[in-house]
Amino acid sequence: MKAEVSAYLRPAASGECRIVDLDLLADGVRVSWNDGHASFFHHVWLRDCCYCEACGDSYSSKRFFVPGDMPLEPTAREAVIDGDGALAITWEADGHRSRFDPAWLRQHCYDERSRQARRARPTPWDAALEADLPRVELASASRGDAARMDLYRKLRDFGLVVVHGAPARPGFIRDVAALVGEMGADTSYGEIFDLTPSSRVRTMGNTFRPVPPHTDEAFRYTPPGLNILGCVRPAKKAGESVFVDGIQAATLLRRSDPDAFSLLSGHAHSYHRRHDDAIDQQARMPILSLDDEGCISGIRLHTRASAPLDLPPDLVPPYYAAYRQICELVMARTNQVHLVLQAGEAVIFDNHRVLHGRGGFEDSARFLQLCNVSREGFHERLRLLALRLGLHTEAHQVLGGGVVT
Amino acid sequence: MKAEVSAYLRPAASGECRIVDLDLLADGVRVSWNDGHASFFHHVWLRDCCYCEACGDSYSSKRFFVPGDMPLEPTAREAVIDGDGALAITWEADGHRSRFDPAWLRQHCYDERSRQARRARPTPWDAALEADLPRVELASASRGDAARMDLYRKLRDFGLVVVHGAPARPGFIRDVAALVGEMGADTSYGEIFDLTPSSRVRTMGNTFRPVPPHTDEAFRYTPPGLNILGCVRPAKKAGESVFVDGIQAATLLRRSDPDAFSLLSGHAHSYHRRHDDAIDQQARMPILSLDDEGCISGIRLHTRASAPLDLPPDLVPPYYAAYRQICELVMARTNQVHLVLQAGEAVIFDNHRVLHGRGGFEDSARFLQLCNVSREGFHERLRLLALRLGLHTEAHQVLGGGVVT
Repeated sequence: MKAEVSAYLRPAASGECRIVDLDLLADGVRVSWNDGHASFFHHVWLRDCCYCEACGDSYSSKRFFVPGDMPLEPTAREAVIDGDGALAITWEADGHRSRFDPAWLRQHCYDERSRQARRARPTPWDAALEADLPRVELASASRGDAARMDLYRKLRDFGLVVVHGAPARPGFIRDVAALVGEMGADTSYGEIFDLTPSSRVRTMGNTFRPVPPHTDEAFRYTPPGLNILGCVRPAKKAGESVFVDGIQAATLLRRSDPDAFSLLSGHAHSYHRRHDDAIDQQARMPILSLDDEGCISGIRLHTRASAPLDLPPDLVPPYYAAYRQICELVMARTNQVHLVLQAGEAVIFDNHRVLHGRGGFEDSARFLQLCNVSREGFHERLRLLALRLGLHTEAHQVLGGGVVT
Repeated sequence: MKAEVSAYLRPAASGECRIVDLDLLADGVRVSWNDGHASFFHHVWLRDCCYCEACGDSYSSKRFFVPGDMPLEPTAREAVIDGDGALAITWEADGHRSRFDPAWLRQHCYDERSRQARRARPTPWDAALEADLPRVELASASRGDAARMDLYRKLRDFGLVVVHGAPARPGFIRDVAALVGEMGADTSYGEIFDLTPSSRVRTMGNTFRPVPPHTDEAFRYTPPGLNILGCVRPAKKAGESVFVDGIQAATLLRRSDPDAFSLLSGHAHSYHRRHDDAIDQQARMPILSLDDEGCISGIRLHTRASAPLDLPPDLVPPYYAAYRQICELVMARTNQVHLVLQAGEAVIFDNHRVLHGRGGFEDSARFLQLCNVSREGFHERLRLLALRLGLHTEAHQVLGGGVVT
């Protein structure tokens, strides 16, 4: 068991990471590092993070030490830097000894500066991104780890990346999807969804009409994570794809009308999809999602699937005004990236952040395809690849985000 | 299109539902009903809920009227009860006419009393439930709609139901799962997970050890929804299954220590699972989830998968004290249902609400199996079955809940 998790328990940090001084206090240990940083670890935190063989480690869930075993205010008999440079603590209550690798400890510092530095931050964008779209070539991202990491970073930061250079045959998005995850993990459609005006599937996607920007399947508790939209055959004219950064739109609203922002992040919108007596999907979730720091983490907005609102009566008029505002921000050309996908091009985008739509067209030969892969599966791949490449900061970033469910 | 959604747009309400009076006000319409109830609908809400052929309906997402089309403060030229008893409105701005079926309108009243009545409320439980466990027989629930509805209600209200009378062959939980949904929709394991001490799978489930109550896969953004745990062969002695109602435990904490409750519902716990360089799942989500009304909607608690906490430093000591309290509530015998599953018995339980664990045992022949189905898929089935049975109140209940993701 021990060997399996060694990469995590004894990470090879980039650069030398050494503890130069310790200060044992009543409620914890102050650690001074060779680069001048200082961090404090509470005894209760350290005791909980003892992953020795007797306590078991929580990486595998073969954990034997349970919260009930822990004194609420543990105290240390001794804290020293041992021969390997690790923090070694002997606990007062039972003489148990815990040992913390310095690189592991440094990775898990929870002083405010370290916590902030650990968070992946999205790069918001608007129409200006059209001039410099994040792009990668399918062949290079399929072959090499470095090009793959470049793709992962673009998708993580922008929530959108164009993959070009694929053979333009039906189903090629399967190869694009394979770059970031496994297909079909969380969609209610089949593995690949054909977007053609001739399709018999009864959604707006299968018409010639323009489709306003939206996030897919807002009526599901957990909407699909990453969408992959690929072009087998573009329309001869028009039919451009439209993308909007929901985080940018929400940020603009937060600045211009904080009350409207609070209404959309603090109250549930109602969404539904119903057909005959065979489909009855319903979700009551806020349009805007915030993370535990109050940062905008996701958007769930699909006006065409909006159900009768179920809100306290006095909130109905101001809520509608706020709803209208976010819709206008999403419809504003200045916030939209327009892009005519060429044959063999695909866009991977985060359906919890980026809205998509399209302009109308007349060419019945236009043929796009759509599929999904899991967001968390992508985040896992990103961490594992970063670890393999020795990019320890990125391997330990806090990702997550997405819409509240 | 129209015909397909007629069941929703013109529901046959149980009992007669008639509008007896209208009062057209500046900002909406006050509707008086034959049973004495009165409700107010804002013009903006009514205009948004016009699902006529020109506006399109949002049940199918073939919706043509978009928020940008709507005046922010629409006014009505006229509001009358038409020949069919429907509310008919002519709008000031463009003379557009909207018509609302009385049963549909009544179903969507958003006065506080109606909103409260529409919410499904969990029935919290503790050890006393052992004496009267919710049970159904596999054969009857498989055959008849009424018995199926009985099963659905028990699962909805208690978050747990015992299904008995299955043939005790490996894989029988497939038949139990089929009662409530489709298998494998949201698990990271295979379709059926064997829980035997002889298994080579490296989790605590595959040992002889006791397993403290927990929710499964707390380290995933969206943990599995419904768990189905079936017994092919019980241990000769001991090995009892343990269940805890997370809503009950959280309610007790909320009463006894509101500050501790706020810490666990307002801040993210860290969970992880990591093996070698192949698995690296991480989630930062609160242990306790609240819905938009502040009611407890779910619990995510898996002490053995608890990762080093990443919280603001000053919160670390009080957070640990709160964490310890919820763990103690979950470990208290008075909150636990103990149950020795017999061969051919299974428990379906809501993994977003009910924790499960087991006592230790010594019999290597003990053989349980586990699988998952989707929570939202179950909720959809419940609504569709209720509709088929003419149970309109239950067909239109607000379900949802579950853990924040």
